[in-house]
Amino acid sequence: MYSVTVRDHIMIAHSFVGEVFGPAQRLHGATFVCDVEFRRAKLDADGIVVDIGRALAVLRQVLEPLNYRNLDDEPDFRGRNTTTEFLCAEIFRRIAARIAEGALGPAATRDGSGDGGLASMKVTLHESHVAWASYEAALP
Amino acid sequence: MYSVTVRDHIMIAHSFVGEVFGPAQRLHGATFVCDVEFRRAKLDADGIVVDIGRALAVLRQVLEPLNYRNLDDEPDFRGRNTTTEFLCAEIFRRIAARIAEGALGPAATRDGSGDGGLASMKVTLHESHVAWASYEAALP
Amino acid sequence: MYSVTVRDHIMIAHSFVGEVFGPAQRLHGATFVCDVEFRRAKLDADGIVVDIGRALAVLRQVLEPLNYRNLDDEPDFRGRNTTTEFLCAEIFRRIAARIAEGALGPAATRDGSGDGGLASMKVTLHESHVAWASYEAALP
Amino acid sequence: MYSVTVRDHIMIAHSFVGEVFGPAQRLHGATFVCDVEFRRAKLDADGIVVDIGRALAVLRQVLEPLNYRNLDDEPDFRGRNTTTEFLCAEIFRRIAARIAEGALGPAATRDGSGDGGLASMKVTLHESHVAWASYEAALP
Amino acid sequence: MYSVTVRDHIMIAHSFVGEVFGPAQRLHGATFVCDVEFRRAKLDADGIVVDIGRALAVLRQVLEPLNYRNLDDEPDFRGRNTTTEFLCAEIFRRIAARIAEGALGPAATRDGSGDGGLASMKVTLHESHVAWASYEAALP
Amino acid sequence: MYSVTVRDHIMIAHSFVGEVFGPAQRLHGATFVCDVEFRRAKLDADGIVVDIGRALAVLRQVLEPLNYRNLDDEPDFRGRNTTTEFLCAEIFRRIAARIAEGALGPAATRDGSGDGGLASMKVTLHESHVAWASYEAALP
Repeated sequence: MYSVTVRDHIMIAHSFVGEVFGPAQRLHGATFVCDVEFRRAKLDADGIVVDIGRALAVLRQVLEPLNYRNLDDEPDFRGRNTTTEFLCAEIFRRIAARIAEGALGPAATRDGSGDGGLASMKVTLHESHVAWASYEAALP
Repeated sequence: MYSVTVRDHIMIAHSFVGEVFGPAQRLHGATFVCDVEFRRAKLDADGIVVDIGRALAVLRQVLEPLNYRNLDDEPDFRGRNTTTEFLCAEIFRRIAARIAEGALGPAATRDGSGDGGLASMKVTLHESHVAWASYEAALP
Repeated sequence: MYSVTVRDHIMIAHSFVGEVFGPAQRLHGATFVCDVEFRRAKLDADGIVVDIGRALAVLRQVLEPLNYRNLDDEPDFRGRNTTTEFLCAEIFRRIAARIAEGALGPAATRDGSGDGGLASMKVTLHESHVAWASYEAALP
Repeated sequence: MYSVTVRDHIMIAHSFVGEVFGPAQRLHGATFVCDVEFRRAKLDADGIVVDIGRALAVLRQVLEPLNYRNLDDEPDFRGRNTTTEFLCAEIFRRIAARIAEGALGPAATRDGSGDGGLASMKVTLHESHVAWASYEAALP
Repeated sequence: MYSVTVRDHIMIAHSFVGEVFGPAQRLHGATFVCDVEFRRAKLDADGIVVDIGRALAVLRQVLEPLNYRNLDDEPDFRGRNTTTEFLCAEIFRRIAARIAEGALGPAATRDGSGDGGLASMKVTLHESHVAWASYEAALP
Repeated sequence: MYSVTVRDHIMIAHSFVGEVFGPAQRLHGATFVCDVEFRRAKLDADGIVVDIGRALAVLRQVLEPLNYRNLDDEPDFRGRNTTTEFLCAEIFRRIAARIAEGALGPAATRDGSGDGGLASMKVTLHESHVAWASYEAALP
């Protein structure tokens, strides 16, 4: 299995509901350094999993609407704890949707490629030097 | 699959038995920066894999009896080479035992949760900027 | 010149006033990984600049009142942009005050030591993998 | 599953053929920080996955013929884009061949060990602080 | 003294002339992860050393003409060894020129600010996980 | 001022005398990741501060007699606490002695170069992901 991973980041505010969160129930914030790993079984005709420049551009586009925001005010997250692991899955879904629309080119999709295109993806968010979370799943 | 990883460290002395170890047969030591990854298929009712603060506390408790020790003197390790990979599995077992006792809350255990709780765990020990080891396995 | 540096972190929310800040004028947040460097010309009688465990404890005490907060609501910061570089100087002042009170022991202060104690200090806050700030100055 | 990972690096020049590469079609270069992860189900008789010193030596030997080279001039890569992910697989094959020859000792090979020896391997090349690639596969 | 540092990178090819360079006399390449530290004695009216977004933009503009190039072909470097430390000073000069032109705003220059503007700058280029170089100097 | 820094590491055992050290009074150990920064005002005739390969070789030679040792048994350290900051100064002295002997070539010494050779040096030892120490001084 081959993979390519690219990194970018966002800076957000949020608060959590639930006793387990202790002081993190207060409004606070985080820098999330975000790694997205793209995996496929075979390299495409250009000898790549996905073009790194294009992958960085798609990641930037997906992160932009979250960046410099208070996630407590985002309609998409109403009634949800925007924990690090929850956000990993949310970013996964948004990137997967962009891939399906062709943002990484036809070779990245199962239909557009002879060998199945991207097989799976993993999104990791680093919230500090001592804690990070991830979500990984197959791509449709 | 979701995951959350937390980091802490220990500083220990030890020596190895066996020609393959060369100069590491002498009494020496290591800083082990320890990452523990907790994995589960679905987030719990609070939207988390495990609370990061609680995970850091359990890791600290498990590492404490090993910290600032000469592992050659520890009865638990009599007759064993306390290699980096061996210690990964040992720390895995000790954390797994704490989880079974409920140290990460009922949602972390297979019985205490509706969806199976924590599925697996991975322990990584970084011994330098150029070498690290890990042990991963399913949780019972 | 000798130095010892210790690391910890905080997670805060804030917003900035001023056109130069662009989207960072909105309420957002940051993880600040905080490094504090203590410098002295000679080692003390124990052979150290400052005890690392004690330094980590003082740093934790100074960071705690800022952690998991919206800095816009802190009376101390009323009317100020709590930029990364501003916070470096603020944390510097708070640690310097604790040192003067003896939190790092008598050998750390100019009066309590034969050779002048700690000479200077540098506080660095990492706000992401691509940006950080610092403030350094002599200790009184 | 146990693993041990070791790190080294190479500095190479190359260029790519294909419109998708944009400015990387020009002759340029890269530092590749190379991590090789060795995995096995059980520790060997010495309590290790593989000796770290020996693993570093084999990695060095495999990287040496690529180091300080223009990969466009290497006969082995004629007509291929030496992308980061392509090179991961190439380094994988070369290390696998060395293991088969016994470079990591008999316990590392399926035949030389009672429990199957090394099960799989993963090669990761970091090309910058924001991009890396990997190739992983079972060992024969 | 306050500082703000930002990071970006380039990927280049080059070769060196001189026996001291050994195998690095051959055409090879490097990823240079580039950190630029801006220093000033007092924060400006907005409470900053320099806007981080603007600093990243200036760094990008200065690095772009070097990126994905064979430095042996650049007229600016004819007859020079483009060593890591040489390139640090070159990037320093190019950024200093942009600052003088006002690219970081009037508050960044000695004339445009009441308190002297930026006092000095340091450029660091990381060529691998085990080697880096820097150049620092006062700003005119 | 120009600088070049190189990195290597050692793994040692030791214990400390003095109540301030708490549990670190017990025999324990550390991995010290060691960075040595060489500084000079002007580049030499080859366009370098010091050759990186040669610098790494000298660092390796200086670290070797300390590596895989119990420092409590080393005659050189009899009656001394081998704290991180103490070892920084010790490694500084040993490298300075090698430079004086010509190990980095004539251009590195004040006498062997037209412009003063290496001006100063800084040795940093990282003992964990949250603590490091350094010693810096002018070279004679």
